[in-house]
Amino acid sequence: GQPFVLIAGPCQIESATHALETAAALKEQCESLGIGLIYKSSYDKANRTSLNSQRGIGLRDGLDILARVRETYGIPVLTDVHAPEQCAQVAQAVDVLQIPAFLCRQTDLLIAAGETGAVINVKKGQFLAPWDMTHVAAKIAATGNRNIMLCERGTSFGYNTLVNDMRGLPIMARDGYPVVFDATHSVQQPGGLGGASGGQREFAPVVARAALAVGVAALFIETHQDPDHAPSDGPNMLPLADMPVLLRRFKQIDDLIKSTI
Amino acid sequence: GQPFVLIAGPCQIESATHALETAAALKEQCESLGIGLIYKSSYDKANRTSLNSQRGIGLRDGLDILARVRETYGIPVLTDVHAPEQCAQVAQAVDVLQIPAFLCRQTDLLIAAGETGAVINVKKGQFLAPWDMTHVAAKIAATGNRNIMLCERGTSFGYNTLVNDMRGLPIMARDGYPVVFDATHSVQQPGGLGGASGGQREFAPVVARAALAVGVAALFIETHQDPDHAPSDGPNMLPLADMPVLLRRFKQIDDLIKSTI
Amino acid sequence: GQPFVLIAGPCQIESATHALETAAALKEQCESLGIGLIYKSSYDKANRTSLNSQRGIGLRDGLDILARVRETYGIPVLTDVHAPEQCAQVAQAVDVLQIPAFLCRQTDLLIAAGETGAVINVKKGQFLAPWDMTHVAAKIAATGNRNIMLCERGTSFGYNTLVNDMRGLPIMARDGYPVVFDATHSVQQPGGLGGASGGQREFAPVVARAALAVGVAALFIETHQDPDHAPSDGPNMLPLADMPVLLRRFKQIDDLIKSTI
Amino acid sequence: GQPFVLIAGPCQIESATHALETAAALKEQCESLGIGLIYKSSYDKANRTSLNSQRGIGLRDGLDILARVRETYGIPVLTDVHAPEQCAQVAQAVDVLQIPAFLCRQTDLLIAAGETGAVINVKKGQFLAPWDMTHVAAKIAATGNRNIMLCERGTSFGYNTLVNDMRGLPIMARDGYPVVFDATHSVQQPGGLGGASGGQREFAPVVARAALAVGVAALFIETHQDPDHAPSDGPNMLPLADMPVLLRRFKQIDDLIKSTI
Repeated sequence: GQPFVLIAGPCQIESATHALETAAALKEQCESLGIGLIYKSSYDKANRTSLNSQRGIGLRDGLDILARVRETYGIPVLTDVHAPEQCAQVAQAVDVLQIPAFLCRQTDLLIAAGETGAVINVKKGQFLAPWDMTHVAAKIAATGNRNIMLCERGTSFGYNTLVNDMRGLPIMARDGYPVVFDATHSVQQPGGLGGASGGQREFAPVVARAALAVGVAALFIETHQDPDHAPSDGPNMLPLADMPVLLRRFKQIDDLIKSTI
Repeated sequence: GQPFVLIAGPCQIESATHALETAAALKEQCESLGIGLIYKSSYDKANRTSLNSQRGIGLRDGLDILARVRETYGIPVLTDVHAPEQCAQVAQAVDVLQIPAFLCRQTDLLIAAGETGAVINVKKGQFLAPWDMTHVAAKIAATGNRNIMLCERGTSFGYNTLVNDMRGLPIMARDGYPVVFDATHSVQQPGGLGGASGGQREFAPVVARAALAVGVAALFIETHQDPDHAPSDGPNMLPLADMPVLLRRFKQIDDLIKSTI
Repeated sequence: GQPFVLIAGPCQIESATHALETAAALKEQCESLGIGLIYKSSYDKANRTSLNSQRGIGLRDGLDILARVRETYGIPVLTDVHAPEQCAQVAQAVDVLQIPAFLCRQTDLLIAAGETGAVINVKKGQFLAPWDMTHVAAKIAATGNRNIMLCERGTSFGYNTLVNDMRGLPIMARDGYPVVFDATHSVQQPGGLGGASGGQREFAPVVARAALAVGVAALFIETHQDPDHAPSDGPNMLPLADMPVLLRRFKQIDDLIKSTI
Repeated sequence: GQPFVLIAGPCQIESATHALETAAALKEQCESLGIGLIYKSSYDKANRTSLNSQRGIGLRDGLDILARVRETYGIPVLTDVHAPEQCAQVAQAVDVLQIPAFLCRQTDLLIAAGETGAVINVKKGQFLAPWDMTHVAAKIAATGNRNIMLCERGTSFGYNTLVNDMRGLPIMARDGYPVVFDATHSVQQPGGLGGASGGQREFAPVVARAALAVGVAALFIETHQDPDHAPSDGPNMLPLADMPVLLRRFKQIDDLIKSTI
């Protein structure tokens, strides 16, 4: 298998400066370890728990900033889309369109995303079994676009809790599409803080190590220089300064698993 | 408490004739029992398991048919919306806008629906705890529209299975909005047939009786004269011919529960 | 169907006086409503969360007290057994042997209980599906004893939480054995208080009403004159003084459901 | 950390010859890879799904065979106990007493096992959260015996399915006791074959790799030269002939994870 690619960045696009600085740090970290990088950040948080939470910088400014990251550092960028009519415009600025987990069965969105020809990363809904993703992928593939990635980000387990079923990774891989493991959303506690989602940041490296040992094509991690003051997903984002030590270990596991025995 | 209202109809709008005939039958059944009726049917199934399933009759034709049902029989009608830009148009033809469970956290959709001033029936996502719905309702109420109904339709329980937690009904009622119990989607087996959702039609009356004994403002049931040949949700819809006997029992339970002791 | 029977009493046998007083109160409450009563109490809590919790009065004293309740008030009594060698002795003092949920697959215990010829009430393990109980019942029935009751008391749902699947009641009834609904253990929060189980007493009547509307042969409720100071299961036991109002409503629901339509 | 130890053997003791042959093969496999081995086998399957399943060779013959394995190959042996009165006798023949998952809260069994002074391996009940095991360990430790191992073997996830929450491994390790990962029971499908448990043998190596990458003290695997004809747990046991390749990979992962970075 190919070495894992890292999809990483702050949950939200906060400003051009913030995006460029974070991308610079991640690029340097990844290059020193020989890890491929896709920069991730969102211009709109369309399904926050509560109306009192920040929505984001907006589509136009967001795409401008992502385009600058791509140009400045020569790295592919990923962002999520929430409506069919956004897909074509977003696909001009980014390399990977991401379908949010709650929206992974919305046929029109999957088709519109597929039709752009961009790479599509679909998050598995928290309410779906891994084998259900074959139908999700087929909706996109029906557009002729087979640049599809399927992403595990946890399954509903009782209330306000997600669990990763590691068997789901090889099950999702059966259709031949690369499988991504989202380590930081998997440790979210949806609604766990009442008006906001909680998270267990300390377990993100735990589930990441497990997934890499099972074998994945990409690892998805949200990171921030100061997660406790980030506008969203702070409780589960990893501090940017912790990434080098973690990535070194992740790379070792991936190298071992991808080696012939 | 007020007597329960029945929200019922076929999953999809199949034709004007079909809609009018079904509405006529339901109206007659409900009138003879003194049950209030809201007619429900969908013009678009936007999140089918598989691309090979029928999508529906479309927005324009669908709204025309619902408007005819409303005029012909003088009963309020309900349909679901999938995108913010549909809300204003749909609200002109129907009395109740329904937010699908997968979309119950999409802020823009909730706001657009709320701004129409119509009654909004929000289905609780299969991935949400009952107490999380307070934030969903608050997003709508922020528009000034407090005509909100909160609907239980099952919570993820392992793979391809939903369970109704009856404690969720009084928990959702805490904010003062009427609580609806969706008996037929609660017995769906999402993805249970591979490329389609399965269902356990025989248990819909079981969970309906339980919910009525707990106490709900409305009961939601999809019904069809021939469920095994319906274009969607056949495995969990109830036969139209079975409704009178079931409704009689439901009415007895509701009358008892709403009576002072 | 026959009217529901109430299985009720304090979780633990505290003293002869306490048992006799509680039984007297329950007997009076049930007689005034025409409800059959089986008195329940335990002489040993063999699987407390923590070692620091009280175990109980012990087998010999416990059986003496239960025998006195039976003689004094002429009501059948029920207690739980934890080891095969206890069954014969316990069966001499009580009418119903109860198999705890954690032990519902222990073959030797089921056989030893069955061989006494007493009525056996088996609680469904929190880890079992309703249809799995057919094999549990068959182990007992293999002794020739078909006086079996199958009891729903909640299924594991994430961590520290149980949920009642109301579909399980008719599923468990398929073998023809009476189905019992345990309303107070169903609202336990196992381990929810750290070193002890928590509980949501306020929801016991909610799930009881739901189960009665589905249809059960017996309702199981632990009750205490002062639950907050009871030696075990206080958070989920119902106050004895609240029982008359609750039982009256339960009786109305059961009467309605058992009536022909 | 110390290298992982393998706890392995056939589910049931079938005969002296079978036990000695299996132990010989496992010993050779482990020695060539530098993996410590504890031989596991059961003399009694006390909680089979159905009465029609084989119970086992019995305590006396079983202990004789385990003692022969221990003497012949100089490897420690493990077996499970089901009743307090068995503990002292079993502890004379084996090195590790195992508490079955369903029995992990039975205080008398935990105390009797602890009092033998043997090493105690407690399986986490499918109905417990990882943090609940601290109270289970405390019951044993109250005897003065701190030779305790805590074993993950899956948590109830809907019906007839278990899931491993990898976060549970570091959570269970907080008390300082070694954590064991049971790879073959974790992929059981309890009751999944109707009258017997099913299993997904193909996923046992997947979850084992994940657990080793998180970090465990021991790996538990049931293995058999012909699982499809084994008297119990066939669907989830791994073929003995597949073990060398799997163990080599497991050892590589463990060596990497236990190395300083």
